[in-house]
Amino acid sequence: MTDIIEREVKLKLESPTLTDLYNKLLGDGIQFIRKETEEDIYFNTEFRDFRKTDEALRIRKTDTGIEFTYKGPKIGKLSKSREEITVTVNNTENLIKILEKLGIKPAYTVVKNRIFLRDSEFIICLDTVKDLGEFIEIEIPNSTEEKLINYVNLFLEKYKIKATQIKKSYLELLVTKNEKNDSNTD
Amino acid sequence: MTDIIEREVKLKLESPTLTDLYNKLLGDGIQFIRKETEEDIYFNTEFRDFRKTDEALRIRKTDTGIEFTYKGPKIGKLSKSREEITVTVNNTENLIKILEKLGIKPAYTVVKNRIFLRDSEFIICLDTVKDLGEFIEIEIPNSTEEKLINYVNLFLEKYKIKATQIKKSYLELLVTKNEKNDSNTD
Repeated sequence: MTDIIEREVKLKLESPTLTDLYNKLLGDGIQFIRKETEEDIYFNTEFRDFRKTDEALRIRKTDTGIEFTYKGPKIGKLSKSREEITVTVNNTENLIKILEKLGIKPAYTVVKNRIFLRDSEFIICLDTVKDLGEFIEIEIPNSTEEKLINYVNLFLEKYKIKATQIKKSYLELLVTKNEKNDSNTD
Repeated sequence: MTDIIEREVKLKLESPTLTDLYNKLLGDGIQFIRKETEEDIYFNTEFRDFRKTDEALRIRKTDTGIEFTYKGPKIGKLSKSREEITVTVNNTENLIKILEKLGIKPAYTVVKNRIFLRDSEFIICLDTVKDLGEFIEIEIPNSTEEKLINYVNLFLEKYKIKATQIKKSYLELLVTKNEKNDSNTD
């Protein structure tokens, strides 16, 4: 657990394209940090339904390693605040096999290409999420919501961005999308 | 899983002491491989009783790292044959916390100091197991039971060893001992 409270705004990008925006930002001197492919495998169990308990169990594979993380239910009013426990492991396939033996099975996989940028104290993530589209996440650690909202509004205006604010996680968006698809085919 | 079938004999040592035996063996030119402290934490779950399903879930801490292992029920007639899946992790405490969140809790801890020796194709382990005493394990990979038994008999005779053969695992011995203690105090 950490005492840092991350304030974050997530936006579904309509225009321009993520590539065009990326080029404009670099042209304006915004600092490139790194690119990363993240594959997040979310699990659910035979003995407890994480959708009901608001828990999450995730394996995250990146270019640099494999993390196994438990996230507890959201705590109190700060919707981004929740207990998080992580270990790193050496082998995704074997960890999945062990979990399956315990009745804990992969439910959803979220794959995204993420570009990390920095504009002074703000972190800007440009995300291309498989099956969901292009997103911007802007966050500021240890600061006020007001400061973040002001920055986001100026940012949208300056780069003529059309976007919709999203409160859900990528996992929740994917689950919602799949449930819609399921009901369409009924 | 592996195709190697390990044939192994486990003996509870009565005399001489493990230290005396160790010194005699080294004096006879038997090869020292390494010493290791192994701490094995065995888990059980709220949703399935591993004592009934003949499964095991274990964290093994040694001087060289941390392993997380699932062992399936024993298969067929070869009592030492069972599915085994392992990953290495970086942090015991956090893995225990994650497992506890899932209703999987530490049940028993087996701590042993193990000395690995080699006598041609035979591996000899001299084990000092906390709360259980001193043991010898002799194993030979990929060979016959007859060859192993012959070696063990010659070994016991040559070093004037008094010992009892044990079929149970250290975990089973510890569970049995605790159940006895529990019933004695009733």
